[in-house]
Amino acid sequence: MDEGGLGHTMKLTMLDLETAAVGSRFPLAPVLEALPWNRDGLIAAIAQQHGSGEVLMLAWMNRRALDETLASGQVCYWSRSRQQLWRKGESSGHWQQLIEARLDCDGDAILLIVDQQGPACHTGRPTCFYNAIEDDQVHILTAPLKEPAA
Amino acid sequence: MDEGGLGHTMKLTMLDLETAAVGSRFPLAPVLEALPWNRDGLIAAIAQQHGSGEVLMLAWMNRRALDETLASGQVCYWSRSRQQLWRKGESSGHWQQLIEARLDCDGDAILLIVDQQGPACHTGRPTCFYNAIEDDQVHILTAPLKEPAA
Repeated sequence: MDEGGLGHTMKLTMLDLETAAVGSRFPLAPVLEALPWNRDGLIAAIAQQHGSGEVLMLAWMNRRALDETLASGQVCYWSRSRQQLWRKGESSGHWQQLIEARLDCDGDAILLIVDQQGPACHTGRPTCFYNAIEDDQVHILTAPLKEPAA
Repeated sequence: MDEGGLGHTMKLTMLDLETAAVGSRFPLAPVLEALPWNRDGLIAAIAQQHGSGEVLMLAWMNRRALDETLASGQVCYWSRSRQQLWRKGESSGHWQQLIEARLDCDGDAILLIVDQQGPACHTGRPTCFYNAIEDDQVHILTAPLKEPAA
């Protein structure tokens, strides 16, 4: 027996959530333990603007980034290129305030409903998804709101 | 000289699109060649319901799946678990009709604006993102609309 460890030994799988009745509640810690983090230890994170529903960006989180985001209410990703925590807005001022987070059915993606301050995209555009495919062309939909962040 | 190959030798990078003026148009083929497919040859694909803006699911596409989707107007993913093309709705009838596709700034994600027939989620729920994180709990937001698809 692992004395005092009872509260930490609850095991869940994503299937437990899938088959649960609507309105059911599960403790967060064992759900996070059940996530199938990818081979780099990451989960895909989609940021969506609260209210408008505009999809802003796709980025990645490791466990530390997700924990920090949930604790602080400010979105923190994992930068794959810099291999470090990426507190969105720290250098640009374009913070993402977390309104709600929702895990998907198999736990390899998380939807972040946010209130975005300024442009979400590093190019200075409101959203990263500005390259529209139209037949055999790609059409640039938006211009930067301001100079790209350094 | 590669006789007759001139039209196929245009080289683009995502940076060319990033710095282009709003309203600019690029030929699709060299843009698709410029995409930084991941080590499995995939791009992340977010499906969003046209009109409501609800984010339905995150899945993956390889080049063949993307080409087929753009050609047919019906969304086709790459199933990582089955390692084959996944024509969404082929077994369930829950097709996704493509309304518009938009690439993100660095070309490693694509937003699919779709008209979803029936539930998007394999559990029979309208969206895969039904596990809401609320403080230290996970709350099951929705019930299946019908029996999960086989």
